[in-house]
This record gives sequence, structure tokens and C-alpha cells, in this order.
Amino acid sequence: MFEFIIKPRFSETDALGHINNTVVPVWFEEARIGVFEIFNPGLSISTWNLILKKFEIEFFHQIMPYQDILITTTISKLGNTSLTVHQTATQSGKVVVSGNTVLVHFDYKTQKSAAIPSDIREKLTQHVVDVSQ
Amino acid sequence: MFEFIIKPRFSETDALGHINNTVVPVWFEEARIGVFEIFNPGLSISTWNLILKKFEIEFFHQIMPYQDILITTTISKLGNTSLTVHQTATQSGKVVVSGNTVLVHFDYKTQKSAAIPSDIREKLTQHVVDVSQ
Amino acid sequence: MFEFIIKPRFSETDALGHINNTVVPVWFEEARIGVFEIFNPGLSISTWNLILKKFEIEFFHQIMPYQDILITTTISKLGNTSLTVHQTATQSGKVVVSGNTVLVHFDYKTQKSAAIPSDIREKLTQHVVDVSQ
Amino acid sequence: MFEFIIKPRFSETDALGHINNTVVPVWFEEARIGVFEIFNPGLSISTWNLILKKFEIEFFHQIMPYQDILITTTISKLGNTSLTVHQTATQSGKVVVSGNTVLVHFDYKTQKSAAIPSDIREKLTQHVVDVSQ
Repeated sequence: MFEFIIKPRFSETDALGHINNTVVPVWFEEARIGVFEIFNPGLSISTWNLILKKFEIEFFHQIMPYQDILITTTISKLGNTSLTVHQTATQSGKVVVSGNTVLVHFDYKTQKSAAIPSDIREKLTQHVVDVSQ
Repeated sequence: MFEFIIKPRFSETDALGHINNTVVPVWFEEARIGVFEIFNPGLSISTWNLILKKFEIEFFHQIMPYQDILITTTISKLGNTSLTVHQTATQSGKVVVSGNTVLVHFDYKTQKSAAIPSDIREKLTQHVVDVSQ
Repeated sequence: MFEFIIKPRFSETDALGHINNTVVPVWFEEARIGVFEIFNPGLSISTWNLILKKFEIEFFHQIMPYQDILITTTISKLGNTSLTVHQTATQSGKVVVSGNTVLVHFDYKTQKSAAIPSDIREKLTQHVVDVSQ
Repeated sequence: MFEFIIKPRFSETDALGHINNTVVPVWFEEARIGVFEIFNPGLSISTWNLILKKFEIEFFHQIMPYQDILITTTISKLGNTSLTVHQTATQSGKVVVSGNTVLVHFDYKTQKSAAIPSDIREKLTQHVVDVSQ
């Protein structure tokens, strides 16, 4: 499980007084850095090998500015070429948002998906958590 | 059906050379203005009466900067207090992204969901399209 | 003089109820597209030849969501390797913001500034407006 | 002097491979939190008492994703109703950006500027640094 702290920015609020919902995908992308580092150590752009296929995000509570957010990131499904990342955001002890993101191991040169290599798969396995129950 | 044109911004690209995936919820929120106007004519913040419960977005093709995006917005489900908005983004003749967003008619004073009034429901009905087939 | 229309987005407001000030550089970058097209027709990333050195922005009035913004873009100074772009944003008949941006003609391969070629200079000259008076 | 660490986000890069210049005002606003707390302890929106009049930002080096940025914030000028905040951003030991922001002590009810109270002025004085030399 990866943990990441976000400080909600004033510019991320909207006129209704809370964090705008479009900000959460930005935070979740930032918090997936642990997964990105497994796929692409050093995070060089020229060796980037993931593409985002899909995400879904559910909102449970309004998010306040200036109060830290803890994002936890686990892997809920590990397929042949793709994986599903499960994330939750907690503020003041309450889960305010959760989301699932499908990433595909991708070869930017051939523009095709590719099987996840066994050494990467092994490292990912340590972060697999069954969230279905 | 509502139609909305977006001009993808240079600042919305990322280091991989395409539009970053976190931008699409921003565009989809902007393109839901037609729905917002039905719920809250004049769009005054003080009378805002919708809250976002959930969205899911699927990516089919990389999105290029500087080429217009056409976003279509329909209603795919119309419940008692909530509705599901279906949106697609088309660039250069290809559907590049689609998404569904669940909005809840919400009373910010009591902080509770509320049944969608019949006059609003009637206007929404004209934009209902069954996308399940 | 270039003109560009911006539709202020709901996600660009902040908790004080107006457009957040950090949004204006994004709009101004978008509205400089006419200048970019003179330097780099077709706007291909691989032939990009400008770098931003500096910008300054002054705010005169609060900016409201959902009301169109007209941005005018002129060139206020045209040097050997650089130029200053002057922009104003008008909403509901009032100039709400103005700004100046210094751009440098730049060779990304050598990572050095370069004299502005005469054919580009000629096209730019048509947009030079003296704003000092 | 206030210090603030920013982690540049992948979504903040652009197609040229570095952090887009429009992101820096967002970081600088976030890093002014120390100043905001002096003016409005607790940072409640309902008691907000500052308005931004102007900012200028100068870029010295390209900013890379994923490498921490240290932002230092001092006060370079302290007037009757306004102050100038000076900020620098340092990455990998180099100052990559600097900026000045003019903030005005503002009464949102009367929509007018107001003299900075002496207790706030006293706290601000501790962060005044002359940057003119």
C-alpha cells in the first residue's frame, strides 16, 4: 500500500466553497507515483510505459481547503497487460472520495499494449489488496 | 442533446505530448452547463442545487492540442433525486473519450438530497437518450 | 490585433466566488495562439521555437464565472530575439485584467535564443501597437 | 521568511517536457499560506481579507517534474494598505523562478481597501527582507 499526503490548494476550491470535484483525478494521478516508479524507475518520460484507460471516482463528503488529505493506493486487480488501481482519500478521519483507475502497460513506440514483465508483476503483487469484500 | 465546443489548451498537454487525462473532467463539467441551466436558470451560486456523486471516464484515443473537441451531453437515466449524464468527446471525427456523471438534486441549506421538481423533470426529459443499446 | 473569446469555467472559480487569479495566465497563453502561429505555423511541438521569459498581470475587477471574456493581444515591443506581448481581458464592457509577457525566440536544440527571422518579424509588425501612451 | 515544499505534478508538465509556466502562480499562491495566516488566522473564507492586485514572474531555468521545489516567501515592501511579497523557487540547487505579488488588505463587505492593523503589521515586519540589493 502506498500513502501520499496532499495539501488542498486554495485555487482548487470553487465558488461553492469546497474543493472542486475535477481536482481529485489530479491528486490521484500524483499519488500513483509509487506505481509509476515500479513500471519506470527514475520516471523518465522517454521510457514511460503506461497509458490510462479508464477511471471512476465516487464522492462521499465535501472536501475542505487547507486540511491535509491522506491518499492510499493499492492494486485491486492485476491482469496480463493491465491493472486496476484502487485509491481512497481521507480528510479529518473520514473517507471523502474513492476511485478506481485502469492502467495499461503500453509500448509507445509500437503504440500497443504489452504483457506486464514478471519482475514488475512481482513488485506489484506486494501492493495487491482485495477490495471486493 | 447539448453540444459544446472545447479548444484544447497548450497548458492542458503533458510531457507525453497529448492532453493529460485529468483535463477531461474539467471539460465535461464545462459542457454540462446546459443541464445546470435547467436546474438553476441564471447559474447563480446562491441558488445552486446540484451535487456531483460520481463520474467515470473512458479513454479511447490520445487527444491532441489545438484541434477542436465536440462534446455531446445527454441524460441516460433520470431518477427521483438524481440523474446520470452521458457525454462523449469527439476530435477529428473520432470519439476519443466518453463518460457518465451522476448528479444529485441537492438542498445546500439542509445539506440533503431532494426530489427533482416536475417542471425541471419535464425539461430534462427532452434530453434523455437511451445509451444502453 | 488578435481577439480571442474565453468562457470562464466553473472549476476556475474559487471559494471567494470569483475566478481565481492563477487562471488568467492560462487564458493569456491560450489567447497568444495567433502569435504562436506566426512563429510556428501548424503549431507542431517538434518545431516549437518560443520560450517564456517573464509575465506580469494586473487585476482591476473581480472576474465572474459564465460571462464571456474578450482577450485582445498586441505586440508592444519587438526586439532582436524577443518580443513583449500586451493583453487585456474585458468582461461586461470593463477591462478586468491586463498583462505583459516577454517571449524569446528560442532554439530548443542548441538551447539558445536566436534572432527573429525577417519573414516572422514582418508578420509580427502588423500587430505592433504602442501601449505606452 | 517562509519556506514551502512543492512536488511538481506530472499533470503540470506540458508537451515541451517541462512544467508549464502557468503553474507557477498556483504554487506561489499555495506558498503564501504563511502570509494568509497572519492576516486571517484559521484561514476561514468568511473572514478573508486580502485581494491580489498584481503579480510578476520571471523564469530562469526550465522546471522538471518530480523533483522537489523549495519556495521561499518574504515581504519586500510593507505599505499602508498593501504589501509586496517576494518569492523564489529553487530546484536542484538553482533558482528557477522568482516573483513579486502585490496584495491589498481588503474589506469584502464594503469592497474597499483598508489600512493594515498594527498587530498584523507587527507580525509581517518579522518577514520583511530588502531584496533591492
